[in-house]
Amino acid sequence: MEKIVFSPNEGVDIQELERLCLKVGWPKRAPSKVETALKNSFMVASLCLIKEISQPDGSSVEVKRELIGMARATSDHVFNATIWDVLVDPLYQGQGLGKALVEQMIRALLRRNIGNITLFADSQVVDFYKNLGFEPDPEGIKGMFWYPRF
Amino acid sequence: MEKIVFSPNEGVDIQELERLCLKVGWPKRAPSKVETALKNSFMVASLCLIKEISQPDGSSVEVKRELIGMARATSDHVFNATIWDVLVDPLYQGQGLGKALVEQMIRALLRRNIGNITLFADSQVVDFYKNLGFEPDPEGIKGMFWYPRF
Repeated sequence: MEKIVFSPNEGVDIQELERLCLKVGWPKRAPSKVETALKNSFMVASLCLIKEISQPDGSSVEVKRELIGMARATSDHVFNATIWDVLVDPLYQGQGLGKALVEQMIRALLRRNIGNITLFADSQVVDFYKNLGFEPDPEGIKGMFWYPRF
Repeated sequence: MEKIVFSPNEGVDIQELERLCLKVGWPKRAPSKVETALKNSFMVASLCLIKEISQPDGSSVEVKRELIGMARATSDHVFNATIWDVLVDPLYQGQGLGKALVEQMIRALLRRNIGNITLFADSQVVDFYKNLGFEPDPEGIKGMFWYPRF
């Protein structure tokens, strides 16, 4: 039996996350830094595939758990949150799991009374987030990034 | 004697901040919430006016300290930071203090090796942040805000 489980804030295994990032094609980041970033994120949501494999003789059930998606948010714990690093294993993309992951995260943030939920979206995922209720540049507000001047 | 002192992360008195927000015309927010937000910000920078008033007989010096500016940043402590709530007392605006405040904050974040410094700028301050080295929508990245659907 297989099921997909969403956990809003249960912690993610760093090595598993590293494997997931590799699959998605993200640049490698130092595990110690990733660990610090997760520890200092307000919320780290995960999607896991749970496989229950029964022994042929019915004597026992082996449970395998695989991380297939993740998203995290920084926050001041009261007013605002910013969602970063939304990723889903390419093998499981196209099934609405990324959408479910972000939707669940929004709900979890609203339960914590965070009113201002924000993110920075790459151009190719702007429509994805629009469908989830995010508005680009509302009232002319601009997302801006600082770049070192050479 | 008067001087203006920038502190990158020294803590801000909530009542003083409340008075400053009032002067700037910000909507009132519950002090307990503001306190939690400051506690959970990675960095809370302040600008203070320090007045040293000598007694006429030279016997002592009275030091008065007034909060005239503030900015804060949420962060995962490693990869990214987002600057929020940049404010300067209207009496002291137009002297480059807001610029100095944000510049000092950028330097303090860089000293902590935060590479990705971001913010959401209201339309009327986009040019102010451009002058500080912030780029709007770099490579098509869009700042997005979630809005409840009715």
